[in-house]
Amino acid sequence: MTDVQEALEFITRGADEILLLEELRKKLATGKPLRIKAGFDPTAPDLHLGHTVLINKMRQFQDLGHDVIFLIGDFTGMIGDPTGKSATRPPLTETEIQENAKTYQQQIYKILDPDKTVIEFNSKWMSKMSSADMVRLASKHTVARMLERDDFDKRYKSGQAIAIHEFLYPLVQGYDSVALDADVELGGTDQKFNLLVGRQLQEAYGKKPQVILTMPILEGYTASDDKMSKSLDNYIGITESPDEMFGKLMSIDDEKMWRYFELLSFRSLDEINGFKQDIDQGANPRDIKFKLAEEIITRFHNAKAAEAAQTDFINRFSNNAIPDDMPEREINVGSEGMPLVNVLKEAGLVSSTSDGHRMVKQGAVRIDGERVEDSKQILNSGFSAILQVGKRKFARVILSDR
Amino acid sequence: MTDVQEALEFITRGADEILLLEELRKKLATGKPLRIKAGFDPTAPDLHLGHTVLINKMRQFQDLGHDVIFLIGDFTGMIGDPTGKSATRPPLTETEIQENAKTYQQQIYKILDPDKTVIEFNSKWMSKMSSADMVRLASKHTVARMLERDDFDKRYKSGQAIAIHEFLYPLVQGYDSVALDADVELGGTDQKFNLLVGRQLQEAYGKKPQVILTMPILEGYTASDDKMSKSLDNYIGITESPDEMFGKLMSIDDEKMWRYFELLSFRSLDEINGFKQDIDQGANPRDIKFKLAEEIITRFHNAKAAEAAQTDFINRFSNNAIPDDMPEREINVGSEGMPLVNVLKEAGLVSSTSDGHRMVKQGAVRIDGERVEDSKQILNSGFSAILQVGKRKFARVILSDR
Repeated sequence: MTDVQEALEFITRGADEILLLEELRKKLATGKPLRIKAGFDPTAPDLHLGHTVLINKMRQFQDLGHDVIFLIGDFTGMIGDPTGKSATRPPLTETEIQENAKTYQQQIYKILDPDKTVIEFNSKWMSKMSSADMVRLASKHTVARMLERDDFDKRYKSGQAIAIHEFLYPLVQGYDSVALDADVELGGTDQKFNLLVGRQLQEAYGKKPQVILTMPILEGYTASDDKMSKSLDNYIGITESPDEMFGKLMSIDDEKMWRYFELLSFRSLDEINGFKQDIDQGANPRDIKFKLAEEIITRFHNAKAAEAAQTDFINRFSNNAIPDDMPEREINVGSEGMPLVNVLKEAGLVSSTSDGHRMVKQGAVRIDGERVEDSKQILNSGFSAILQVGKRKFARVILSDR
Repeated sequence: MTDVQEALEFITRGADEILLLEELRKKLATGKPLRIKAGFDPTAPDLHLGHTVLINKMRQFQDLGHDVIFLIGDFTGMIGDPTGKSATRPPLTETEIQENAKTYQQQIYKILDPDKTVIEFNSKWMSKMSSADMVRLASKHTVARMLERDDFDKRYKSGQAIAIHEFLYPLVQGYDSVALDADVELGGTDQKFNLLVGRQLQEAYGKKPQVILTMPILEGYTASDDKMSKSLDNYIGITESPDEMFGKLMSIDDEKMWRYFELLSFRSLDEINGFKQDIDQGANPRDIKFKLAEEIITRFHNAKAAEAAQTDFINRFSNNAIPDDMPEREINVGSEGMPLVNVLKEAGLVSSTSDGHRMVKQGAVRIDGERVEDSKQILNSGFSAILQVGKRKFARVILSDR
């Protein structure tokens, strides 16, 4: 795929913003492999599909023949939280960072081509940097521009403390682009400011400034538009079991399905548009969703596992068609969780908890198609499934603690 | 002098502010020699009396038996101006810094006791500091507190750029107190913020916080209350000739004389109060000023030179009593300077330049009591002297370029 326009279309798919497109076009036109940088946290990785949006984009660059640099920001990780305020951010040892890097590799090589991926650690250059070099680095940026960053701006205006080293971290991240001679840096939309710092620093150090490509933040699989994240319990981890993945992917609504296709599938946009036409012509959206789930489970497990998960899913729901349009209930169960019968009542599936106990006893209650026997079982925040009572009562239920 | 109260009175003489006096009392009460820090610029020193206010205070601590550390901030000097904007701040080499240190020694040992003075360079610890240590150091202070510093506050509010490394310099200066285990840091009033940073950093690094003692800024010898500085051309350099020193010191007004006595003289306050009484009882202020000039010239040259300068001064003015109250004229002569006759006219001493030429020719014009022969000589900005035409016309003239 040497045609620049074709490459550009491939690269811009799903992208939120590219600065500057014209520069990217020129870089591509040279025909030389570009150096594509993306930075990752050095803490123990447990990637979910949200993270893979960026990694997929790296893969696309690989497919176009470019060099992809998976940069682990271990320098700051080894410092930890220097204010000492956060017990959750102890400094990482070199051994821990190496272990985390291995875990990263196990996960990202499900998407990236190991032969075309360079893993770098920024401690390589940062640990050689003297305090005088750090002063020089800090001289390349101004306080006012740093305070323009959204989160700094908010904290400063609301009187929340910003420690001065927090101004140095974006500079370190930006300096990585100088050290790596990055042609393009990828990041989430929320990283745009930091990616721009990289661009500015490359210019300040007399290098060619990088092109910036930001990818949107993927929403979680639940009904809300919150971004996919562990803390919101709306994520699909890439090491989750095929069945879990399948169930969660099947629970997304149709609109979100197209978003997932665009950002997570490697199918061409033409093919995806074909699916849309299929549905317009009467195809069951469930069957299209099957294709998404199949592709993703194949990627992170294998084709056989994907097939088995689908068969299992169909079997569980075989006795009764799941309605296309079922109510969705988000229930706050606090940090203690809630017994199943109460959840059934809150979801409007039974008239009382004693009604609930009776229905479970009769074998009429199913979670994701599987019959349940213990009416008192506690369901916790983060639980998300299709609850069914009898043949016709359905609800998609999400439990939270907020 | 072991009595704490007596020592405190000695120390507080002329001081602008002490934080915290109570802590200083306790430190003194231990009876152990305290570590007194004062920081100096590593650029080529050419000290004037304004600088010596601080050095005199160091000397007083020495006289009380304490250890005085003359700290040369060469770490930042070796970085120069990292923004590259100022051609006047090129990085200093190690050789240059050593040379400057020698020049410092030649000058400060006119006041300090070499045997009780330790000269330190902050590059000793700063050059060993890694970039990670610098990040940790930066974590000890907040952006908001740094922006409270007067000059930063003004610049930020008026939209003038503050480079981020400018936030690191006060931290480096403060860290010097950590590295030195300073008990007391001395500085000019304008250094108060930075001295406080040192105090805070010592606490952050688990050390005993230093007491801060600020000294006022000495005014220049001209009629204005501007601080003594080279750029304002109102300074008395400690390497100036005895005659120059004498002339400049004699030109200060009476009020400033007492200020100079308090901050520059090592005479006791009792003795100085005695001089005040002498004047009240009819003594000529000129004779008291003689004592000030004598002490200062003796300090930086020797007693013989002081005596000679005084004799010379008296001889020059012997034929005519200088009026106590003569007009003072500040004349802007631009960067080109101005011929003597024009200066005479501007000062109102002659009616026209041709009148001026004639008076010079007649030998009626004197500069600081010395007859002049060249009416066309150019007087430049910075020139300051008593001009005299005939027996009765006097003016104290100061030339500036602004």
